[in-house]
Amino acid sequence: MAKDITPRATDYSRWYTDVVLRSTLADYSPVKGCMVIRPHGYSLWENMQRILDGMFKETGHENAYFPLFIPKSFLAKEAEHIEGFAKECAIITHTRLKATDQEGRDRVIPDPDSRLEEELIVRPTSETIIYSMFSKWIKSWRDLPLLLNQWANIVRWEMRTRLFLRTTEFLWQEGHTAHATHDEAREETLRMLEVYRRFAEEYLAVPVLTGVKTPREKFAGALDTYCIEALMQDGKALQAGTSHDLGQNFAKAFDVRFQNSEGQWEHVWNTSWGVSTRLIGALVMSHSDDDGLVLPPRVAPIQAVIVPIWRNDEQREQTLEAGRKLLAELRAAGIAARLDERDNVNPGFKYADWELKGVPLRLELGPRDLDKGQVMAVRRTDRSKTPFSLDGAAEAVVGALDEIQQQLFQQALDRRAAMTREVETWDEFCEEIEKGGFLRARFCEEDAVEEAIQTETKATVRLIAFDEVDDPGPCVKSGKPARRRAYFARAY
Amino acid sequence: MAKDITPRATDYSRWYTDVVLRSTLADYSPVKGCMVIRPHGYSLWENMQRILDGMFKETGHENAYFPLFIPKSFLAKEAEHIEGFAKECAIITHTRLKATDQEGRDRVIPDPDSRLEEELIVRPTSETIIYSMFSKWIKSWRDLPLLLNQWANIVRWEMRTRLFLRTTEFLWQEGHTAHATHDEAREETLRMLEVYRRFAEEYLAVPVLTGVKTPREKFAGALDTYCIEALMQDGKALQAGTSHDLGQNFAKAFDVRFQNSEGQWEHVWNTSWGVSTRLIGALVMSHSDDDGLVLPPRVAPIQAVIVPIWRNDEQREQTLEAGRKLLAELRAAGIAARLDERDNVNPGFKYADWELKGVPLRLELGPRDLDKGQVMAVRRTDRSKTPFSLDGAAEAVVGALDEIQQQLFQQALDRRAAMTREVETWDEFCEEIEKGGFLRARFCEEDAVEEAIQTETKATVRLIAFDEVDDPGPCVKSGKPARRRAYFARAY
Repeated sequence: MAKDITPRATDYSRWYTDVVLRSTLADYSPVKGCMVIRPHGYSLWENMQRILDGMFKETGHENAYFPLFIPKSFLAKEAEHIEGFAKECAIITHTRLKATDQEGRDRVIPDPDSRLEEELIVRPTSETIIYSMFSKWIKSWRDLPLLLNQWANIVRWEMRTRLFLRTTEFLWQEGHTAHATHDEAREETLRMLEVYRRFAEEYLAVPVLTGVKTPREKFAGALDTYCIEALMQDGKALQAGTSHDLGQNFAKAFDVRFQNSEGQWEHVWNTSWGVSTRLIGALVMSHSDDDGLVLPPRVAPIQAVIVPIWRNDEQREQTLEAGRKLLAELRAAGIAARLDERDNVNPGFKYADWELKGVPLRLELGPRDLDKGQVMAVRRTDRSKTPFSLDGAAEAVVGALDEIQQQLFQQALDRRAAMTREVETWDEFCEEIEKGGFLRARFCEEDAVEEAIQTETKATVRLIAFDEVDDPGPCVKSGKPARRRAYFARAY
Repeated sequence: MAKDITPRATDYSRWYTDVVLRSTLADYSPVKGCMVIRPHGYSLWENMQRILDGMFKETGHENAYFPLFIPKSFLAKEAEHIEGFAKECAIITHTRLKATDQEGRDRVIPDPDSRLEEELIVRPTSETIIYSMFSKWIKSWRDLPLLLNQWANIVRWEMRTRLFLRTTEFLWQEGHTAHATHDEAREETLRMLEVYRRFAEEYLAVPVLTGVKTPREKFAGALDTYCIEALMQDGKALQAGTSHDLGQNFAKAFDVRFQNSEGQWEHVWNTSWGVSTRLIGALVMSHSDDDGLVLPPRVAPIQAVIVPIWRNDEQREQTLEAGRKLLAELRAAGIAARLDERDNVNPGFKYADWELKGVPLRLELGPRDLDKGQVMAVRRTDRSKTPFSLDGAAEAVVGALDEIQQQLFQQALDRRAAMTREVETWDEFCEEIEKGGFLRARFCEEDAVEEAIQTETKATVRLIAFDEVDDPGPCVKSGKPARRRAYFARAY
């Protein structure tokens, strides 16, 4: 089976697109910049949603749903916010189509009589609409904290798009909370960042750095933006999730106030935090290879696939029967397993097909395996083969899936370590940034210097890590005194 | 606690709005016609989604996600389809906002330079965008049937809106399938209608009629529309779900073809089917009363609430301790239970609060109950009280919840029976329609007659039931020969 996947070494960008399309995670749509998430990709997203949703509920959050549309004037209420989103929004101006000819089919235009008095913006994020409701619901300190989350679609009119990583429409969750004090709000911001870190590392097997963005890179309207930042195989960084300390900016813009226990009115403190289908892009770029997708077992829609091998009808009967029995055992043990019963393709085709789709473990079941009372387990990661006794196979599969999960995380961790280095001089910086990876360099934290670095090298400050210790010296670019190092990289 | 709910007898429509708002299912938003689904309402929707999603997957469907936006020309490709949706669509014309003054805050307008070449429509339904993808994916009979479902938000620019029942934006699922033959497609259409019937009756406790719509009431672009139709307490009908036999209309418009096993190219046969957050409105209008929401146990976010009763600190300790133990037992038995530990409101307030929110069973736990080793179970439906022994309380709760579920269904069924009658003459029709309910009348099935009936009485043909037997006679309106009866009602 020809997989038509460009090797990473030839063209990493084309490799990524090939993997996403060929593994049927997603497809291009006829709408510029919008993609279709196909069943394989969507079931991956469903798994991610289920796990994250459980983590949000465990930390006391409830789901709600707010309107898709935001009045133009709402966006404009917070000065930085409108600045940040004005150049990439889908604007609704009319509400009826009108035929321009008798037939009324080929030439329809927006009916001028249906022009909206105030234009509506398709939500690029929901702070404004949500906090306008908070101002209605919150009256007393007893109403706080208010801890909500929304699963929704979002639209940002991007010029250059890429499947999952940057699309005009994407799916995400956005948490929105209100608190009585700034300390509590900051605690919440960091708590949810830690949820994101755990999810990325323990489920997606993607190691991430945690820290704070520079003012230049923070969310439009936030006091501070915290983030998790991952490193892809090609040495480019990818922002995988953000959590914002919004201070009282939106509370003031939308008059969200509460009466404290002494009867005085105060503005609330807000936080917001989000991850999106972009995480699927991070997943693909972290683990996949030239044969296709590699999925971590804990989020894989199919964790193990049984491929029966036969040369005649009798063998077909035997291996299918044993396969069905094994399938039932695996499912009873909570493993997302599938039996490939197709009879119009051969086992070799099936192997390649499930490898392409990233199934972590393949279980080959032929007549000789049956004679020996075993099944041959082949790992997607390194193609290593281990015979499992059919007696107790489920337990062995669970064990192998756990090992694969750990192995993927360790590989990514080792790769990041190898691709992270400290640089001291600007020449060194310029030379090393070409090789990709994270550069740890002293930085004076001045906006103009940050801009100059980006203009000259296309690298940005990805974050200042939480665990960064003081390490004074001259800024790698400006030579001015710098207190500590920051992580620089070119990024998606 | 004042509930501020208008009694049904005073004003049914205001009663409905009061119940939805006061029980915190939903709230009005600042965007005209759009609502906010609050946590209590959203968790109800999550329960409904989980059950329906399981039923869809059991019948072989997979979830996917398609773009929010539809190019204007796509809608126009199917003649009836554009006709049906042109007058109620949100149209995107621009993609950037531009400041008109130095400040750039108060006066922003759509940037004329960002005018789209072709306008985009926010999906009012997704047939066109989905079948354009089907034409890319389907090549051979081996690719059929293709059975997809999408959970999504939908926008139809409605003039008169009402919480849950008719909102500009709503949440729904839309199934879209492609088949090799018309027989198979029709089978699918009816299979999914049966899924909807089971869901409505067995989970929502809402009895529904099943049948076919008249051509006048069918979906724009379908050959036939099948539906489930419910009757509300005020005698108005409500269409609760539809399943469409689309024939080859969209397959021809979007060139969706497959090569059959003989190598010939044929157009596929499509079906689509959907239910929406409108079902929450049906639920509220079916079971609730003047004290607020009444929720069927199988979908209630909270099935049983424990209210401890104390007069002093010692009793508080005791009842809370017993309450926590009971809570753990109920949860272990799979019951969605909650313990109301609030100490700033009294038990009477709590009773009214949970009644308002529709919790099916209240468990009152006071010192005297504790002495007797019991808890007092009070049903939301009829306020009947039954003491349950604390020993084995979980089992008793499960039993009571089952009974409440049955009771709600039976009540609704009895009400529908009482509100359904046969009428023979037009005078009778006009008199009876004022009383509400379903009228079964002979109907010649002519479009003009149907229109006349609607114009004169505001009643429409809700459906021709599947189990309708031949019953020839004169049409109730036209006097022309009619083969059978149809169900007429005024509807939401």
